[in-house]
Amino acid sequence: MKLLLSLLASALLVSADEGMWTFDNPPTKLIQDKYHFTLTKDWLDHVRLSSARLNDGGSGSFVSPHGLLLTNHHVAREQLQKSSTAEHDYIKDGFYARTQADEIKSPDLEINVLISTEDVTARVAAAVKGKSPEEEFAERKKVLAEIQSESTKKTGLRADIVTLYNGAEYWLYRYKKYTDVRIVFAPEAQAAYFGGDPDNFTYPRYDLDMTLLRVYENDKPIDTPNYLKWNPKGAADDELVFVSGNPGSTQRLDTVAQIENDRDNTLPNELKLINARIAVLEAFSKTSPEHARQAGSDIFLLQNDVKELSGEQRGLKDPHVIATKREEEQKLKSAVLARPDLKAQYGTAWDEIADAERKSASRIKERFFHSTDSRLAGIALDIVQYVAEIKKPDGQRLSGFHEAQLESLRYELFSPAPIYKDLEIARITGALKLDIQEMGQNDKYIQTVLGGRTPEEAATDLVNGTHLDDPAVRKKLVEGGEAAVDASTDSMIALARKLDPMRRELTKWMEENVQSVEQRGGERLGRARFAVFGKSTYPDATFTLRLSYGTVKGYAMNGTEAPPKTTFYGLFDRAAGFDYQPPFDIPSRIKEGRSKLDLSTALNFVCTDDIIGGNSGSPVINKAGELVGLIFDGNIESLVGNFVYDIESNRAVAVHTAAMTEVLRNIYGAQALLTELGM
Amino acid sequence: MKLLLSLLASALLVSADEGMWTFDNPPTKLIQDKYHFTLTKDWLDHVRLSSARLNDGGSGSFVSPHGLLLTNHHVAREQLQKSSTAEHDYIKDGFYARTQADEIKSPDLEINVLISTEDVTARVAAAVKGKSPEEEFAERKKVLAEIQSESTKKTGLRADIVTLYNGAEYWLYRYKKYTDVRIVFAPEAQAAYFGGDPDNFTYPRYDLDMTLLRVYENDKPIDTPNYLKWNPKGAADDELVFVSGNPGSTQRLDTVAQIENDRDNTLPNELKLINARIAVLEAFSKTSPEHARQAGSDIFLLQNDVKELSGEQRGLKDPHVIATKREEEQKLKSAVLARPDLKAQYGTAWDEIADAERKSASRIKERFFHSTDSRLAGIALDIVQYVAEIKKPDGQRLSGFHEAQLESLRYELFSPAPIYKDLEIARITGALKLDIQEMGQNDKYIQTVLGGRTPEEAATDLVNGTHLDDPAVRKKLVEGGEAAVDASTDSMIALARKLDPMRRELTKWMEENVQSVEQRGGERLGRARFAVFGKSTYPDATFTLRLSYGTVKGYAMNGTEAPPKTTFYGLFDRAAGFDYQPPFDIPSRIKEGRSKLDLSTALNFVCTDDIIGGNSGSPVINKAGELVGLIFDGNIESLVGNFVYDIESNRAVAVHTAAMTEVLRNIYGAQALLTELGM
Repeated sequence: MKLLLSLLASALLVSADEGMWTFDNPPTKLIQDKYHFTLTKDWLDHVRLSSARLNDGGSGSFVSPHGLLLTNHHVAREQLQKSSTAEHDYIKDGFYARTQADEIKSPDLEINVLISTEDVTARVAAAVKGKSPEEEFAERKKVLAEIQSESTKKTGLRADIVTLYNGAEYWLYRYKKYTDVRIVFAPEAQAAYFGGDPDNFTYPRYDLDMTLLRVYENDKPIDTPNYLKWNPKGAADDELVFVSGNPGSTQRLDTVAQIENDRDNTLPNELKLINARIAVLEAFSKTSPEHARQAGSDIFLLQNDVKELSGEQRGLKDPHVIATKREEEQKLKSAVLARPDLKAQYGTAWDEIADAERKSASRIKERFFHSTDSRLAGIALDIVQYVAEIKKPDGQRLSGFHEAQLESLRYELFSPAPIYKDLEIARITGALKLDIQEMGQNDKYIQTVLGGRTPEEAATDLVNGTHLDDPAVRKKLVEGGEAAVDASTDSMIALARKLDPMRRELTKWMEENVQSVEQRGGERLGRARFAVFGKSTYPDATFTLRLSYGTVKGYAMNGTEAPPKTTFYGLFDRAAGFDYQPPFDIPSRIKEGRSKLDLSTALNFVCTDDIIGGNSGSPVINKAGELVGLIFDGNIESLVGNFVYDIESNRAVAVHTAAMTEVLRNIYGAQALLTELGM
Repeated sequence: MKLLLSLLASALLVSADEGMWTFDNPPTKLIQDKYHFTLTKDWLDHVRLSSARLNDGGSGSFVSPHGLLLTNHHVAREQLQKSSTAEHDYIKDGFYARTQADEIKSPDLEINVLISTEDVTARVAAAVKGKSPEEEFAERKKVLAEIQSESTKKTGLRADIVTLYNGAEYWLYRYKKYTDVRIVFAPEAQAAYFGGDPDNFTYPRYDLDMTLLRVYENDKPIDTPNYLKWNPKGAADDELVFVSGNPGSTQRLDTVAQIENDRDNTLPNELKLINARIAVLEAFSKTSPEHARQAGSDIFLLQNDVKELSGEQRGLKDPHVIATKREEEQKLKSAVLARPDLKAQYGTAWDEIADAERKSASRIKERFFHSTDSRLAGIALDIVQYVAEIKKPDGQRLSGFHEAQLESLRYELFSPAPIYKDLEIARITGALKLDIQEMGQNDKYIQTVLGGRTPEEAATDLVNGTHLDDPAVRKKLVEGGEAAVDASTDSMIALARKLDPMRRELTKWMEENVQSVEQRGGERLGRARFAVFGKSTYPDATFTLRLSYGTVKGYAMNGTEAPPKTTFYGLFDRAAGFDYQPPFDIPSRIKEGRSKLDLSTALNFVCTDDIIGGNSGSPVINKAGELVGLIFDGNIESLVGNFVYDIESNRAVAVHTAAMTEVLRNIYGAQALLTELGM
């Protein structure tokens, strides 16, 4: 599945159906030329206002006038997990609120709807004009914080700065923010995630990866006049379809030096870290069914990351991919070096970035292996930094603590979601053992955490000596400010006070040696690209709203052809092919309700629309602006989509509305929901 | 699907489940060690005598005491095609003989059952001992013809010489031969070949690729006390299963020079030829439904070849495969060169073979593009050569005309199978155009065929001027001997008389410059291998009876796992996924009979048994010696199986007996057959 991982930015000349386009620069002409369909302002506004960002790392869309929001099960899964208890396991059993009163408030989900966007590039350029490279970074940070803060004060809307085209453009995005989000319907996880980790990121698929939420304000469902009409026929083969969602990050125009550093340093360390964490969680799961339940969602998310990152790594090891990137880079470089004016402005950017990448690699291990993998330790550090940062002028604060970001941060920090202490001990112990293995016993960070104890002892002491699992305690500390934090004897706060200076040193070093250089270099390359190729393209993904387009279409796979769609027949075939053994078991409600289903109903389908992690939960929309599907994944061939798009093999994988309609009606008996959906 | 293509030979040290073993040297210890099952002589004899070779290029097995023979639909397809007419299309509609009287005699199928084998290596070695390299080829040919001929006279059985382990061993195989073979049951081709060319050589699959024949002698069904009991439960996941069949050819221990010549010269020319022929047949098919019916089977077979050869070519372009072969070769070479005795005997073989390959490449175009692609022209050349060859001593005749081969040759030559004259004209025209394109207008062969006419004119004259489409005419010419042939004014015979000397020149040149050298070199490498590694291995495939072993097992595929088996659910899923459009349409009898089927019945399955083209129609046999499946294909990963076997990905694909039982009972109402099968 496609979840958000991390953020970066760049741009590219586009091929057919390629691109994750901003709503201010949609591919109107490309769509007109190829598909003879005109994107109107009304159509775009309707789609934009029907779309939502879920800050757990996915996308969604409104599907009724009463705030009913459709997303993936795997996007809502964390909230389902946090709402479950030993007695009520909504992950395993699913959930359906027959009345609004039965809907469950999710503990810490935030939903954003994009209200307006504004190009602030000129103001940023004016602010940094004439500054030295050293001053530029701080000045830019300052003006961006100002812009955000001004907007928040003026509009009350959430204000985000979005860096597009490698920094050649800065935009202010204003969102209506919602934090009262309730769970309406979720199928059993096994129906949503049939095929489990093996089938993840592959196709053909047979997954009901859907969840319905409802957005509230003032304890009432919000009005959503802009919503996507549910089309129960769903997408047809070869139909032109759009995807409106929030792709998290692509690196399509990173320099070759950046990509190679990813391949050789970042990805191997990241995969080592994640695999070690999975091993810890799996061992913990074996100790009891309740422990297995507690660790379930984390394992799920980490396995998803491993499969995605491994696919990226495979892609980057493919000589063809790297050759393509080199060729693209050479094309831009030659054009820049051929024109004296461009050469003078941008000619050295590649080398500067390459140099920064080398510096970055020199401290990469600290970034991965100075970690306790602890939610409590994370909260403690946030609190310690929070009380210090808010005393500074907005423009000088650490990223994440700017005035415009504080409300969302506090919402997250004070989340009532449960923290399981046994699980925390297991994770900290495992993380410290890995830290020691990678950094050595004498590492200062590790010695600070251990304080002469074994990893097990340190973990146990830290977890038993903290009360940060109680949101009220966190709130009290934050409200008490620096004095309260300094005076705290809480074990995690005490540790965070010691670790904070080390973190700040690394952050500062990275800013000075890597980020400032790459920001400046990236911005220049972005401008160079505009100068050479114009703005006929789309920026790299930034977990902001984008529009993709394409058609429902199979593709060449495994020596034959993957079909445009699958059906419930296929679900039963794949299950029977593995004798219904996990992860190919079918929840009993569906297995036993088989005769009530029309098995030839379309279940999942693929389209050429260009998507990536973060697009999970995005609606698939037809020309009439109706909902015809629900994006939940990309195929295995699309994992290299971070770097390149190929219409021959990259496919987005979606749940068909026909299948969702069929199960809501005939398996889950959710007639009230169907009525609300207009059926 | 796996059909026989061509023959070559060599040997290899083996990995788990690898190998196509001769019945004289079965992998008893390997199976005992890994699976704790003992191959007994009785078990092996039972399996051998229950197995059959079909000289259209496949395998089969007896499944009742009354000569009932199970094979693939695609193996029997040529006979079904030859038995069909414009009125009765058994390919399209299938066939079921409700009584024995209704069974249809196939026009020219020959069935062989392996009765005995005898090692004649010593006799061959004695005959060629002390001969010069030049004399050796002729001497070997002579002694082998003698051995065959003696055996035929003595036993009346068909006698074949089989060259094993690159020529380090020569064996005499004696077969009971049957030529009265009747068609009992065939499903619709679309049920047998669902998914068509796209799905061919892939998995998961959903094909009922089966046909039942019955073998007669003296107009009565033969007694087959050795037959495989039909086990309707079929193969279970992870079950140990055997395959007994006739793999056509592997090149697992060809030298790197041979493999590279294949990759760079043979395969590209072969693919060019086949693709051009397919284009001709497809154009012909478009001219009328009856033309489409006539060309159908040829298109089918050629597409099968293209997919198989393309897969081989892809395999050989994989740097990993060539690296593996180089490493294997280097291992043997180092061992040989390290021992002075071995070095003296075998040290120069690699270079000699490489030299022969270079020579072979110099005349490769003639071998592919001196062709009329005409069945009539082929028959004419056979007749012209036949009458000349049989006057010579057996040991000096062209291959194919030895005394022991004549009966089968005559059976084929006098086949009553229809020859379609319009189709012949189209094929000859197309072939001549390709010949001109590849060899130039001034080529002597081409000028001889054209005789100053355009390709269309020449083709039309040749086809209209011959009566060889009548088997009686052929018979009369053969019986009339050289005088009759010399006096004939038949256009095709006249042409064959002119082309015969050119063919003989090329054959002789190839024998002198390539075959004799490679035979001698191969033999020495075979012996070198015995000297270094011993005989703990299996010889390359030679379209003779072999035993493979392995288990029913899925595999990693396309980022996920392929299941051990598929079901009828999957058939309907794949059809619906493509909206039942060809080649994903389901014959109406099955589509409309869906409710009579248990859709969860296992349909196809995969096992690790090592097979290759020619194994089509082989039985899958359990430890009890019962039939549990029917081999019909390999997966796409197995196409490189010509050169390497990898248990991680190579899989044989089989029809499950449960599926065959299910359709015979509930779709085709073949209760009489089920009764004969013991159900």
